Amino acid sequence: MKLGAIEGGGTKFICGIGSADGHLLDSISIPTTTPEQTLGHVMQYFAQFDVQSIGFGSFGPVGTDPNKSNYGQMLNTPKPHWAGFPMLSYLKTQLQMPIVVDTDVNMAALGEATWGAAVGLDSCLYMTVGTGIGAGAIMKGRIVHGFAHTEMGHLLIRKHREDTFNGNCPFHTDCLEGLAAGPAIEARSGRKGALLDREDQLWELEAYYLAQALVNIALVLMPKKVIMGGGVMNQTQLFPYIREQVKHLMQDYLELPEDWIVPPGLGKFSALKGALVQARMNV
Amino acid sequence: MKLGAIEGGGTKFICGIGSADGHLLDSISIPTTTPEQTLGHVMQYFAQFDVQSIGFGSFGPVGTDPNKSNYGQMLNTPKPHWAGFPMLSYLKTQLQMPIVVDTDVNMAALGEATWGAAVGLDSCLYMTVGTGIGAGAIMKGRIVHGFAHTEMGHLLIRKHREDTFNGNCPFHTDCLEGLAAGPAIEARSGRKGALLDREDQLWELEAYYLAQALVNIALVLMPKKVIMGGGVMNQTQLFPYIREQVKHLMQDYLELPEDWIVPPGLGKFSALKGALVQARMNV
Repeated sequence: MKLGAIEGGGTKFICGIGSADGHLLDSISIPTTTPEQTLGHVMQYFAQFDVQSIGFGSFGPVGTDPNKSNYGQMLNTPKPHWAGFPMLSYLKTQLQMPIVVDTDVNMAALGEATWGAAVGLDSCLYMTVGTGIGAGAIMKGRIVHGFAHTEMGHLLIRKHREDTFNGNCPFHTDCLEGLAAGPAIEARSGRKGALLDREDQLWELEAYYLAQALVNIALVLMPKKVIMGGGVMNQTQLFPYIREQVKHLMQDYLELPEDWIVPPGLGKFSALKGALVQARMNV
Repeated sequence: MKLGAIEGGGTKFICGIGSADGHLLDSISIPTTTPEQTLGHVMQYFAQFDVQSIGFGSFGPVGTDPNKSNYGQMLNTPKPHWAGFPMLSYLKTQLQMPIVVDTDVNMAALGEATWGAAVGLDSCLYMTVGTGIGAGAIMKGRIVHGFAHTEMGHLLIRKHREDTFNGNCPFHTDCLEGLAAGPAIEARSGRKGALLDREDQLWELEAYYLAQALVNIALVLMPKKVIMGGGVMNQTQLFPYIREQVKHLMQDYLELPEDWIVPPGLGKFSALKGALVQARMNV
């Protein structure tokens, strides 16, 4: 049995073919242009394979409730051409098979819980820190959804007293994403994060913000594992800084599980493999 | 079939007898003294009735994982005599029946989801604001637990620039509980909250803090309903203030469900009735 997986992002759509036990047999990267063109290429790709079912992890915000009319629809994104586009029904015009849509980060959390750093645990959090910040959670083995998918990138956090950068979230100015995503790092320092020295004190500030978010998420969910991925987390010096800040902010109030904060067990394939898990559930 | 329910607090233990459809047939209030004396009275009470199963919603922190050795044990509380006390095994010495232990606020969330303000919804949050602040969440019909029960009373929030009170949480100083629980209101104003004027501007500050917590909880869980109880919420003027602040802090980023923030549908019986639900599940 072959399963399909899509990780749809603002820059590229990655499509893959995999087996039910999580092995990727093939994959392709398609640049994100207009929805019609991008999803047209996606459909062409899958047409070559005998796929039973597809899991689609998308950038957001996206309708994730199968009982709502906006299921599989891109919602209010600033990305030109995409807001309101009915991605799922467009894909269904050519792909006559079950397709499950959720956010890329929810898929990543599911992938890590199934085959990655959170194997055997019934709860985990996956957070990506890159151009944006997003997170998905698994609790009791299932993706956390309420009246919408979660939006942890916009958590309200405390600004550091020595941080003179205002924040650049178009909605909330100085929320987590506005203070700690890649563009905030670049706006604050005048250089891309990847060009900053590993010893730059900006990384401690970054860790302070990410740790605040993790503390608040922990108090609400108590996930047994926290997996942090995304381009900014390639700065691996962040991991010890974040762990230390989390400990400091918790003030020994909570005893956290050992090795609580870790990099992805599936490398860059967390979301794509999570989409395979969803595809498998839906055969 | 008769079911038993316990709502155990730092001041009093309320015990009740109820039916499987949530009707309370009898109840009693027992002052909280030492664990042996208090739980002794609890056992005497239930010995009078032919009860099949008991749900016990306790003040915390308490072991809530049936697979751990500290299940039903009071954990590290500042309440004298109670830290480490094995409540469940003590009760079991005389009450030979299933007893399920969870936090009082988790029971309250379950009660409200079953027979109260969140009937028919698969997710909700119950928050109590009183001597302490605590909350419990239901997602996909089940109580949210991770590696421990949630501790949303200690969320890190932003202090208002005009608030000169430092906060009085013994762990985190100026977390939610340290800035917004009953003792913080009293320490800031020099008077118990109940004695303050309904128009006192302190209530707007209180709403600002509670709204921040609700915004962050919403971004992590997106609960379909938020139920706010506890002594401080008897100041009903807080509800419109909180709703307004939540809307302001969200900056139209999220469209919240209508009538999102409401008082308990079960009045003061949210937790006791939630304990009945747990008892019913365990017969």
